[in-house]
Amino acid sequence: MKTQVRDWVVGIDIGGTSIVTGIVPRAGGPPRGLRSAPTLPARGVEAVIADIVRLVDEALAEAGLGFDDVAGVGVGCPGPVDRRAGIVSDSPNLGWRDVPLRSLLEARFSRPVTLENDANCAIWGEWWQGAGQGSRSVFGVVIGTGVGGGWISNGELVHGASDVAGEIGHTTVVLDGRRCACGNRGCVEAYAGGPSIAARAREALASGASSILVERVAGDLDRLDAATIFAAAADDDPLAKEVVRETARILGATAANLVNLVNPDVIVFMGGVSGAGELLFAPLRAEVDARAFRAAASVCRIVPGTLGGSAGVVGAAGRFLHAEAHSRVGA
Amino acid sequence: MKTQVRDWVVGIDIGGTSIVTGIVPRAGGPPRGLRSAPTLPARGVEAVIADIVRLVDEALAEAGLGFDDVAGVGVGCPGPVDRRAGIVSDSPNLGWRDVPLRSLLEARFSRPVTLENDANCAIWGEWWQGAGQGSRSVFGVVIGTGVGGGWISNGELVHGASDVAGEIGHTTVVLDGRRCACGNRGCVEAYAGGPSIAARAREALASGASSILVERVAGDLDRLDAATIFAAAADDDPLAKEVVRETARILGATAANLVNLVNPDVIVFMGGVSGAGELLFAPLRAEVDARAFRAAASVCRIVPGTLGGSAGVVGAAGRFLHAEAHSRVGA
Repeated sequence: MKTQVRDWVVGIDIGGTSIVTGIVPRAGGPPRGLRSAPTLPARGVEAVIADIVRLVDEALAEAGLGFDDVAGVGVGCPGPVDRRAGIVSDSPNLGWRDVPLRSLLEARFSRPVTLENDANCAIWGEWWQGAGQGSRSVFGVVIGTGVGGGWISNGELVHGASDVAGEIGHTTVVLDGRRCACGNRGCVEAYAGGPSIAARAREALASGASSILVERVAGDLDRLDAATIFAAAADDDPLAKEVVRETARILGATAANLVNLVNPDVIVFMGGVSGAGELLFAPLRAEVDARAFRAAASVCRIVPGTLGGSAGVVGAAGRFLHAEAHSRVGA
Repeated sequence: MKTQVRDWVVGIDIGGTSIVTGIVPRAGGPPRGLRSAPTLPARGVEAVIADIVRLVDEALAEAGLGFDDVAGVGVGCPGPVDRRAGIVSDSPNLGWRDVPLRSLLEARFSRPVTLENDANCAIWGEWWQGAGQGSRSVFGVVIGTGVGGGWISNGELVHGASDVAGEIGHTTVVLDGRRCACGNRGCVEAYAGGPSIAARAREALASGASSILVERVAGDLDRLDAATIFAAAADDDPLAKEVVRETARILGATAANLVNLVNPDVIVFMGGVSGAGELLFAPLRAEVDARAFRAAASVCRIVPGTLGGSAGVVGAAGRFLHAEAHSRVGA
């Protein structure tokens, strides 16, 4: 029997807010047929899977490919994820518990499926094809609704003893600081996650400071989000600038902790906030220089990701290929 | 020519305060002829090496061994250390710069010598023969004058991009906290290093609180040290108990950060402070349970080391054997 090398891998990035899918070439290069849809996980896993199947079918059609060209499917999903069993064990961002996502998707696609934490997929994508290429020790920080992390050392993801490793968003940098959704106090996420950035701006507005922000959301402060705040800071709004400055200080102290503890070649910031450019990165890097050991800071690049919203899709497909190469998936 | 397998390795642990040496059996087991002397590094490296040679000669004589029985010498030294070149590049604790310690010791001993960071040696010792045995992901925190760290993942030390990895003592847990010797603010070491613990007690005394501590150091507060404070706390002194409680809170938040970020099987606390027993470890573990993810905290043991002051000697010798096994030292 002829062994067929299939040249394409489906990448699926399931986030709390949206699903992104694409068809990734085995040899690397940008994904084809990239598309997204709202996740709406409360509808239940079957409805979400139906949307995923539809998105993938459309993507294949657009790329002029069929399932015969697809070696398998890599999926990234908010953790915690039981990779070996292929189960989403207890994801607060999706509200799913003990969902056997891998076998459900294998039944639909008739192809082997791998499951991995979404932040791990994102940094794997940036390492394979983006800002982390060629580095041996790579830490990724994903800033969205939450603050996730993933970390590659000597060509392998660091998973730790129970697949939790990398949760930089839930490390304390302010001992008695803001309460975090995880129950802890003073976590990075409690300051630098998107909703936390907006909450800090709302608190400053509530204390009476004036700002262009009120006008930008037409007086409806519930609409305030991190993107609006960064835009106002770029337009020199003092309150927005102060919120961005504090965000950079928290993320700078966080990056300094990573520099001293992990001593990576590169820290890649991903997710929406990382698009803020030098407005964020200049003070962030200054904070690292003020806090970290020179011997470690001087060898560490601190950069935004280059793959944007497709990092998770590219990385999920990359994780499938990695598992295939290590014979951890079926033929 | 006959290849001789030599059954013993010399372990040397050079600290800022004292040198410890011992003869470690290749097959494991407690070191023979363990002894120590003050380092007094300001005398210069030649005087320190003369003391080391004397200690090792005495230890061999006591153990009834000669240099023919010794395969080589493992040395642990406060960092940063250039392991490959065998150079102590810039050690603030020793005040040495660019000292070619490996070649100096090889000239004296006519045996191959390996050089490694002292905290890395201590956790390697505990992993080989102590509290970390059998674990895959092991983090060691050494609390002495400073707070050092070392970390083993899948049987190898994590060195990072420039041999700095593991510096948990210089991660920020209090964003705008106490100034640290490293220049940063709010480092773990600025609260939980021995002199920092004493400084916090002195500050509390200066603010007028009464305590048995004054009597215990006969009114000379310069003599106040961590051991005296822990002893007074065990005797129910309120001020000392408060200092210990805050130390446990800082170290608990630190351990929680390690649990979420590194997700190890075990965190081993070493150095003098780790001898404080449940007075320290009970509130420390409670802090971890309050702060860390259950999925990670539930798989992580948090324990004191079992090798005491010999961990560094055992680990330094173990690092020599590891290098020998990987053909990184001469025959």
